[in-house]
Amino acid sequence: MRQSQLFSKTERNAPKDEATINAQLLARAGFVSKLMAGAYSYLPLGLRVLNNIENIVREEMNAVGGQEILMPIIHPKSIWATTGGWDKIDVLFKIKSRTEKEYALGQSEEEVVTPLVMKYVNTYKDLPRAVYQINWKFRDELRSKSGLLRGVEFLMKDMYSFHETQADFERFYAEVKKAYFRVYERMGLVAKATEASGGAFTQKVSYEFMVLTDAGEDDILYCDVCDFCVNAEIAKEKEGGQCTRCGKGTLAKARASEVGNVFDLGQKFAKDFDVTYTDKEGKKQHPIMGCFGIGISRAMGVVVEKFHDEKGIIWPEAVAPFRVHLLALGGADGAHIYDSLQKAGVQVLYDDREMSAGEKFAEADLIGIPWRIVVSPKVGDGKVEVKRRTEKEPRIMDVKEALELIKK
Amino acid sequence: MRQSQLFSKTERNAPKDEATINAQLLARAGFVSKLMAGAYSYLPLGLRVLNNIENIVREEMNAVGGQEILMPIIHPKSIWATTGGWDKIDVLFKIKSRTEKEYALGQSEEEVVTPLVMKYVNTYKDLPRAVYQINWKFRDELRSKSGLLRGVEFLMKDMYSFHETQADFERFYAEVKKAYFRVYERMGLVAKATEASGGAFTQKVSYEFMVLTDAGEDDILYCDVCDFCVNAEIAKEKEGGQCTRCGKGTLAKARASEVGNVFDLGQKFAKDFDVTYTDKEGKKQHPIMGCFGIGISRAMGVVVEKFHDEKGIIWPEAVAPFRVHLLALGGADGAHIYDSLQKAGVQVLYDDREMSAGEKFAEADLIGIPWRIVVSPKVGDGKVEVKRRTEKEPRIMDVKEALELIKK
Repeated sequence: MRQSQLFSKTERNAPKDEATINAQLLARAGFVSKLMAGAYSYLPLGLRVLNNIENIVREEMNAVGGQEILMPIIHPKSIWATTGGWDKIDVLFKIKSRTEKEYALGQSEEEVVTPLVMKYVNTYKDLPRAVYQINWKFRDELRSKSGLLRGVEFLMKDMYSFHETQADFERFYAEVKKAYFRVYERMGLVAKATEASGGAFTQKVSYEFMVLTDAGEDDILYCDVCDFCVNAEIAKEKEGGQCTRCGKGTLAKARASEVGNVFDLGQKFAKDFDVTYTDKEGKKQHPIMGCFGIGISRAMGVVVEKFHDEKGIIWPEAVAPFRVHLLALGGADGAHIYDSLQKAGVQVLYDDREMSAGEKFAEADLIGIPWRIVVSPKVGDGKVEVKRRTEKEPRIMDVKEALELIKK
Repeated sequence: MRQSQLFSKTERNAPKDEATINAQLLARAGFVSKLMAGAYSYLPLGLRVLNNIENIVREEMNAVGGQEILMPIIHPKSIWATTGGWDKIDVLFKIKSRTEKEYALGQSEEEVVTPLVMKYVNTYKDLPRAVYQINWKFRDELRSKSGLLRGVEFLMKDMYSFHETQADFERFYAEVKKAYFRVYERMGLVAKATEASGGAFTQKVSYEFMVLTDAGEDDILYCDVCDFCVNAEIAKEKEGGQCTRCGKGTLAKARASEVGNVFDLGQKFAKDFDVTYTDKEGKKQHPIMGCFGIGISRAMGVVVEKFHDEKGIIWPEAVAPFRVHLLALGGADGAHIYDSLQKAGVQVLYDDREMSAGEKFAEADLIGIPWRIVVSPKVGDGKVEVKRRTEKEPRIMDVKEALELIKK
């Protein structure tokens, strides 16, 4: 894309009403624009990042056999009354129509997915099943001051699984856990699976996937030797104590941000809607269910919290809006390199505007695309300056050499 | 995809509460499932169709220079109060939070997009601009009985353009009109551009894109010679009369369904939000705006209304959930053909279930995938039966020949 065509622009100063790094940098660099606390518009650059994260999650959910669907955002009151959520869930947005019909906005979709999937599950042969959607969710939050980390409106992948037995849920959870770690690794994040409390409806332990970051909203205790990790809220252990799992490591405390969660739903929702399948003995049974979430827009915020410096964002390759930022300086024409890269299937943002080198460099650092290529009279004919966003000094090389390097 | 893994199933009978062909067939064939009047879940087959339509629209909007963004669904009351929509638009869903904050659900997004785009438009050099999104919209409808044709929740592409002059809006409208006809043509639809009334906020004429179908909710008058077409609601002409444009043709009346619309917004929204740019003379000016909509989920319903027979849906190639439906009968193994097609990049639904030939044929006709390939002991080794959904009789041919035919 030619930057002269891009309608968003960067801003020198961070918005005064944003307290977090992710909101400040994403707004300054033109990725998002705030409509109100907790609700952002995604501009062309931001939408590209969101789509990249979405596609990573989609690929990994498909790989564990998840079937993608899309459920409504607006729900009839009746289904939320059936599960007790209408009265018990304080973040549930409620709507009254002009004819006094009542609706809720989806904040999780067990109420929709349980009758939906079980409509097609007749016998044990139809189990297990896993379906997921990637769709906007809504929460009536009292405070939304963390940019993309806590939205009134946020994009989430929510997968729901249906099983004959608890053991089969555990088997599937182990598979999804591996898929989740692949998702975070691809985004450049290191996540820890922690135990947490089970939420409103279950006494069972739930699992949270946490990324260490000072912008986080939770405290976790984690072992410096094994992979033991627990939300400090429910931990019996203490900071500096010995790990209760491996007996070797010491427990450290850290601020962390949730990037995924798993709920063992048991038979709660199947019983509420009284949906059953016929087991091998011909008896009616309620399925065991699991819920597996990943906050897509939240993950975008977490990535920015983790990867930035004083100049701007440093996007990991897999989620970056473009792979290359091509800068034409001093009246140089970069069109041929732009064309070559595009023909090679490389995503390029081509800064073809008339602006000073200093301004262009500052913008490129703020936007944070992984590779920067500069064409200018100073560098010379047939040569370009190449720099990764993570490097301090550029290298001068032949155009051909640069193209080979970038395509790798 | 292996059909044995698909969690949705077909149903013999149409749901009793659905009056339209699109809702009946899409529910029976397992494309959608109704949550409540006007709100449907999209199952794996249905989501594939929706994504195909979405991508056709996206490509054509990008081709006219539209920049894709994504705006929030939930809006603060203040922006709707600014334009008068809060009180005047009866289909606007309103929400009160638990702390008595008031919100609206997006039913069109002029209120969000006008300040958003104009934040980045300083001078005439930044114009024209066109941005669009593909997102769910909400309307507090009194009645929703037309399946995907009139939803409480529906997927829409809404593009907004910003211009210096009325002439520039007209130029862009002419471009988008061509893009719209390409969109409909790619979906297999023939649309007519009609004049209609301008809606709540303007005295100006608007443009509707209509597809002739008995399931439509509008009457149009159209010339049998030239491309003159007008919504009967505002027509001065009468059925059987002479065409007022070409003077040659006769006007016919037909039932039609709206699949797109264009509003000439003038300066209404720019004035409401008092957003301006600096013109060549250094004066502050309000831009001229246009709004260009295409109902994505509605188009899916219209396609089914147009393309079906007594056995089921007949998907046009470009929007079909899969290109090939591969049926293994009588214990035959179609895995090698399934693999060959997938390797060739052909989207295949492989019916690997143990069911009678009659049941499989009936399901294939109901689901409506363009090509059907049958492997069975009856057809013989190395041979397959090939039939298009639109053909009555299958042809028997070598596997290799069939693959060549399909790949074209």
